[in-house]
Amino acid sequence: MSASIIAIDAMGGDFGPRCIVPASLDCLEEIPSLHLVLVGQASLIEELIAQRPGVDRARLHVQHASEVIAMDDAPAQVLRRKTDSSMRVALDMVQQGRANACVSAGNTGALMALSRFVLKTLPGIDRPAIVSAIPTNNGFCHLLDLGANVDCSPEQLYQFAVMGSVAAEVLGTPAPRVALLNVGTEMIKGNQQVKLAAQLLQEAGSVNYTGFIEGDGLYRGEADVVVCDGFVGNIVLKSSEGLAKMIALRIEAIFKRHWAGRLVGLVALPLLARVKNELAPAQYNGASLLGLQGIVVKSHGSAGRAGFKSAIRRALKEIEEDLPQRLSGKLEDLLL
Amino acid sequence: MSASIIAIDAMGGDFGPRCIVPASLDCLEEIPSLHLVLVGQASLIEELIAQRPGVDRARLHVQHASEVIAMDDAPAQVLRRKTDSSMRVALDMVQQGRANACVSAGNTGALMALSRFVLKTLPGIDRPAIVSAIPTNNGFCHLLDLGANVDCSPEQLYQFAVMGSVAAEVLGTPAPRVALLNVGTEMIKGNQQVKLAAQLLQEAGSVNYTGFIEGDGLYRGEADVVVCDGFVGNIVLKSSEGLAKMIALRIEAIFKRHWAGRLVGLVALPLLARVKNELAPAQYNGASLLGLQGIVVKSHGSAGRAGFKSAIRRALKEIEEDLPQRLSGKLEDLLL
Repeated sequence: MSASIIAIDAMGGDFGPRCIVPASLDCLEEIPSLHLVLVGQASLIEELIAQRPGVDRARLHVQHASEVIAMDDAPAQVLRRKTDSSMRVALDMVQQGRANACVSAGNTGALMALSRFVLKTLPGIDRPAIVSAIPTNNGFCHLLDLGANVDCSPEQLYQFAVMGSVAAEVLGTPAPRVALLNVGTEMIKGNQQVKLAAQLLQEAGSVNYTGFIEGDGLYRGEADVVVCDGFVGNIVLKSSEGLAKMIALRIEAIFKRHWAGRLVGLVALPLLARVKNELAPAQYNGASLLGLQGIVVKSHGSAGRAGFKSAIRRALKEIEEDLPQRLSGKLEDLLL
Repeated sequence: MSASIIAIDAMGGDFGPRCIVPASLDCLEEIPSLHLVLVGQASLIEELIAQRPGVDRARLHVQHASEVIAMDDAPAQVLRRKTDSSMRVALDMVQQGRANACVSAGNTGALMALSRFVLKTLPGIDRPAIVSAIPTNNGFCHLLDLGANVDCSPEQLYQFAVMGSVAAEVLGTPAPRVALLNVGTEMIKGNQQVKLAAQLLQEAGSVNYTGFIEGDGLYRGEADVVVCDGFVGNIVLKSSEGLAKMIALRIEAIFKRHWAGRLVGLVALPLLARVKNELAPAQYNGASLLGLQGIVVKSHGSAGRAGFKSAIRRALKEIEEDLPQRLSGKLEDLLL
């Protein structure tokens, strides 16, 4: 296998370079075929690298970028004004073929806007979608869009279904069951966009479309790919994260309060921690921007070191599977 | 306090009269001021009553209705054709002043359509919304709309905010913090409907509007009333139910598998069951149809006996607080 080069936006996320640089160096150590370019304030990055003994500098490059995109910068401003930001430079490297993928924990809206501008979408795709795997009763499910597009036409939902299906197949699920998220499973249920998208999917017949799915069906594992607009997807993802945290807190509180529970807690709390980790997928697995002419993985803004490492591994997997190329090939047949 | 009369649709829900009649008789026994009318197939209902000794028939009436609304009946059909259904007859009793509230576990779409047709909405309210309390880190939050309206105009979202605020106040939260569910908390985030609804709420200034809230903020308890369209609300509610069930299953599985966990499970599983119950609010607390000239409480279709009893108690509370009258009074001042 040839070397895989990943350009890392070292400045993004809630924790910034102090989390991202060590996470990147961990991956470099663990994966011999991996090459990394850390993009951002070079002096700060070099300082953080110097704290770590035995770094293989032959596979590590530092690329200076003078600007940083803030979490509340407006995408349009970023596009016009911050042309030497760490995020922009990392994406430029992918576009120029100097890197095979970009990983960023920065501002999602800015990442989406810059990715579209720098890398362009695949032929037939109007706008990229954000996809991530969420855990279900019997495995996991690829949910998209997670927030890139607040309003979606039926055609866009159709495109998301095709992209999600191809991505799921590439990532190891043969003939993935694709469903549209809705408020009921009967044909008459839902808003116009969802009803028309269902028609498009039924008529095209090129995706293993299984119909509507409800919110609870999502977690029951009734589909491998679940499609919705970014408004709904983002709210489902974040409310699920919030609920999982709340449940964990409540259970911990009960175990700590209850007298027998205190003993029990010694065994139970580590088990609960494991469940909690499994249930914060976006935080731990990273999310892909699907539909671009290049690989871009978004790590959760509040992801710690383990989370950022997962995002790098996800990018590596997409490089190895050549996801954009395979998407592009299949899209030609499947798109309307 | 004068007697409160509740008309019970005895035929709805997944479990039907075999669950609803015993639950109703439980409440009759526990609440001396309560009068009930059980509406549905009289012979079957009488049979179920006869199985229970010591029923106070002075406070219990059976009203025959020849038809039953199926869970998959289309609302429009129900409206035109099933004029002697248990749901319709129960609502007619409220309209005629023969009952103070209606409780049903039946088809939500049909209940909404029939309620609007029979009881009419309050002045200034376009369409009713479904509201229920969901648990949060520090209490609970009234979430609406939970599925009555898949597409909502900014004006409707504004109306939901006003109704939710008044209902929360009536139910015991002074100056409730009202938020709009969105994909970000900055002004520029979200779809057109949400942005315009935010403007209306800011301009009106009559509700304690605190801005946008994200999915995780919902469970962190950052607001007392959270407003969204019925498409989003229904999917958030159902996916939360699904996730809570999945987490409970996973934790149970871990406790049962783990050798030390088996002992631990003896203490832990009842505690977990309690958390699980607290987290199925719609199933256990019932939901109100808000904005009607009368009280209608929807019990979850899959609610068991305890769930249906909660729905009856919710209806009783709304009768005692005279919710529609208080809503109507406050709406006059607050609506645009």
